[in-house]
Amino acid sequence: MSSAQPHRAAEVSEWDAQADVVIAGYGIAGVCAAIEAARSGADVLILERTGGWGGAAALAGGFVYLGGGTPLQQALGFDDDAANMEKFLLAAVGPSADPVKIADYCAGSVDHYHWLVDCGVRFKEEFWGEPGWEPPHDEGLMYSGGENAAPFNTIATPAPRGHVPQMQNKRTGEKGGGYMLMKPLVETAEKLGVRVEFDTRIQRLIVDEGGRVVGVLARRYGKDLAVAARTGVVLATGSFAYNQEMVAEYAPRLLGRPAAAIEEHDGIGIQVAQELGAQVEAMDATEVAFFGDPQMLARGVVVNGRGQRYIAEDTYPGRIGQATLIEQDNQAFLIIDEQAHEAALATVTATPFFRQQPTWVAESIAELESEIGLPAGSLQESVSYYNEHAALGADPLLGKKPEWLKPIGSPVAAFDMRGFTAGFPLGGLRTDLDARVLDTAGAPIPGLYAAGRCTAGICTGGYASGASLGDGSFYGRRAGRSAARG
Amino acid sequence: MSSAQPHRAAEVSEWDAQADVVIAGYGIAGVCAAIEAARSGADVLILERTGGWGGAAALAGGFVYLGGGTPLQQALGFDDDAANMEKFLLAAVGPSADPVKIADYCAGSVDHYHWLVDCGVRFKEEFWGEPGWEPPHDEGLMYSGGENAAPFNTIATPAPRGHVPQMQNKRTGEKGGGYMLMKPLVETAEKLGVRVEFDTRIQRLIVDEGGRVVGVLARRYGKDLAVAARTGVVLATGSFAYNQEMVAEYAPRLLGRPAAAIEEHDGIGIQVAQELGAQVEAMDATEVAFFGDPQMLARGVVVNGRGQRYIAEDTYPGRIGQATLIEQDNQAFLIIDEQAHEAALATVTATPFFRQQPTWVAESIAELESEIGLPAGSLQESVSYYNEHAALGADPLLGKKPEWLKPIGSPVAAFDMRGFTAGFPLGGLRTDLDARVLDTAGAPIPGLYAAGRCTAGICTGGYASGASLGDGSFYGRRAGRSAARG
Repeated sequence: MSSAQPHRAAEVSEWDAQADVVIAGYGIAGVCAAIEAARSGADVLILERTGGWGGAAALAGGFVYLGGGTPLQQALGFDDDAANMEKFLLAAVGPSADPVKIADYCAGSVDHYHWLVDCGVRFKEEFWGEPGWEPPHDEGLMYSGGENAAPFNTIATPAPRGHVPQMQNKRTGEKGGGYMLMKPLVETAEKLGVRVEFDTRIQRLIVDEGGRVVGVLARRYGKDLAVAARTGVVLATGSFAYNQEMVAEYAPRLLGRPAAAIEEHDGIGIQVAQELGAQVEAMDATEVAFFGDPQMLARGVVVNGRGQRYIAEDTYPGRIGQATLIEQDNQAFLIIDEQAHEAALATVTATPFFRQQPTWVAESIAELESEIGLPAGSLQESVSYYNEHAALGADPLLGKKPEWLKPIGSPVAAFDMRGFTAGFPLGGLRTDLDARVLDTAGAPIPGLYAAGRCTAGICTGGYASGASLGDGSFYGRRAGRSAARG
Repeated sequence: MSSAQPHRAAEVSEWDAQADVVIAGYGIAGVCAAIEAARSGADVLILERTGGWGGAAALAGGFVYLGGGTPLQQALGFDDDAANMEKFLLAAVGPSADPVKIADYCAGSVDHYHWLVDCGVRFKEEFWGEPGWEPPHDEGLMYSGGENAAPFNTIATPAPRGHVPQMQNKRTGEKGGGYMLMKPLVETAEKLGVRVEFDTRIQRLIVDEGGRVVGVLARRYGKDLAVAARTGVVLATGSFAYNQEMVAEYAPRLLGRPAAAIEEHDGIGIQVAQELGAQVEAMDATEVAFFGDPQMLARGVVVNGRGQRYIAEDTYPGRIGQATLIEQDNQAFLIIDEQAHEAALATVTATPFFRQQPTWVAESIAELESEIGLPAGSLQESVSYYNEHAALGADPLLGKKPEWLKPIGSPVAAFDMRGFTAGFPLGGLRTDLDARVLDTAGAPIPGLYAAGRCTAGICTGGYASGASLGDGSFYGRRAGRSAARG
């Protein structure tokens, strides 16, 4: 039988610890749940399986996807409102985006910004407008989902929503945005008297006769601990990125390519809840990174295994990753001429990979095509078509912005970017707007709450950077309040 | 609480019916389970929610995907063996095909052919070699998965494996292949003394104190019936194609486009088992039909919303459907010149849709491109590239077979085929090779068996026609034997 099966409360002879609210996981969702539960008057205990707080969040770039007219957006001159943000998200994070959750998230976004700032999170009033994964310094705002690229720039008014907590020594890798998001939140929780047990991993939920979750069975240094939760248990244990079986079952395209996740993301939160009949959703949805330098991509053309362009190269690289992995069989080649390659290398965000010798170099596209082994004539057609229109400042095929359109000249190179994708799954427990875990019939499981990447959040297909720290913190707060209420 | 939750045996005051093996659903999986259970000596009772046998199977074209060197393949001169069949399936029905189940299915395929024939199923010794969905008459064998098209014709030795039971009056729509498959199987079951209760729909599983499935709670004419199963319950209730909520959750691309399924496919079998902790798998996988006349497709070119070709047009149309819906945002246009259009219309399988006026007609590709509204120059590039190589009998881009390559001339037409896809989900309960339903930890749920489209079968992404009647009958037999054994 499953090792994640619920344990009966009647079988607990002695409780090793007690609290009103017990939270599994001390990452972004866990800390936000802890703060709000404590502020609601609850005695809160966090169980964290590692030796310290942070989770995947503290290692992340730190984007929080916020909008609708935050003070930071306003200060930097960007118009946005909840309806505009909603329009973008509905278009970008499908195919089965939950309109109710998205509307809720957008409507609460400005308030959530203030909440984070009140907890001590700092966003520097500076905008970074270049293509890229993250700002190079400590800039506080950036496009992080392709809002200003085709096709979304014609669907909603472009507004940057990637809010990055101000970093320390970004270039040396210390104290990144994710750390600077977590630190003030952890300090806030500590001040509120939140207790933590480290090195303690949950194993099962404990349920009473009526099926209500009343605690968790955890393990520390080889010993079982029964921990009672008087009002509620919050699962905040992260994704299933490192559970190979679950990845194989639900999101097989990610097999062998986990990224932006930590080894602790083993799906345990999903498993223990499923044993109580919890519903899961969007289990096939994935965030997909593409290991291409965005400055390089924007200046070249990206083609698939048939030598065809398939996505505007100046969009959010996560969109390029998704399109490449899901729609192009993970086949991608970057075609870039010498001049553009050098221009990209001269940018402040240039990445080491592209300083290497390109995979192929040639004097002509025909030669390059044959060296790569693309179908005869295919790349020549694609590039001549691109060049013809680029010379006129247009990209009728994909709508790349005029500033990046320049005919591809000679000498020309190609980088082999097949398989250059990695990511993490976005699916998980189905929760309602109060972060209650729902069963397969849609009813809340009494006493059980969840947030963060062990739940299906606002992204159920597409992705924008900051959506996970965004919905993790947003619904983490809800989970804390709901669990305190009981 | 869920209406599909298990019912406790202790709460059953009186059993309304009893059998050794109780089977829910009288389609292909149900009838095969019944036959094998009865042959194992069990007293068998089928509960069928409609007023008659047949399920989706009796309405289907009737393909059973069989190979490895069946007598029919041999009689018609096709070489095949289990390893070759396995090679094809592993390449074609991913992305996460289960290699163990596929090997098992291929190894047992010839035996399964004999079993069907022994039950009275007839396959006519005639091959139909044209592109199409089904044979036009009562031919018994056809390519049904793109085995003879790119890229599979270079991966495995092409062998047709779509075995069609001999039909009566195919052209008038009477007694199709699916009916002619079901009829002898139902007669076989009847002769073995299998009992049936029609108009009886299952609602919940009944479990004893130890968690073993010991019966089902069903409903007939507004009355609850408790039906005891002494050795096992077999779920054979079909897919979740007509459960909108489940489709939205698991396979959202199919929303609003169910096909090749029946309204009774409401996911009940999956739901009642999930309430007992059953694992599901491949829930996002779908069969996708493309409503294009294959003779028409093979003679033209199919392009996406960017005017680019993306699939060899002479392949299994189900592959065109999957590629269109999943990889091309459901955007497809068939470009065909007048001469090719007329040639296709003259074939015996020509379909009414293409007898209509094409959506657009033009004298030149440039004109057609602008009428369709494709990106300026995109279609012209694609067609000129295609024509150049077609004139030499080659398709370097996609490998369409030389017999279908002919430069596209003038006048030329386009059929708007955006959204011309529909299908059914392939995901469902996870079962082992003995058709035992597995829980989320991989352990069998005692007393519970399943087969057919309420389970994840051999196809977990790609598809071949005949795979559902194939694995439904194959593992239906296993389910019957296992359930009789208890």
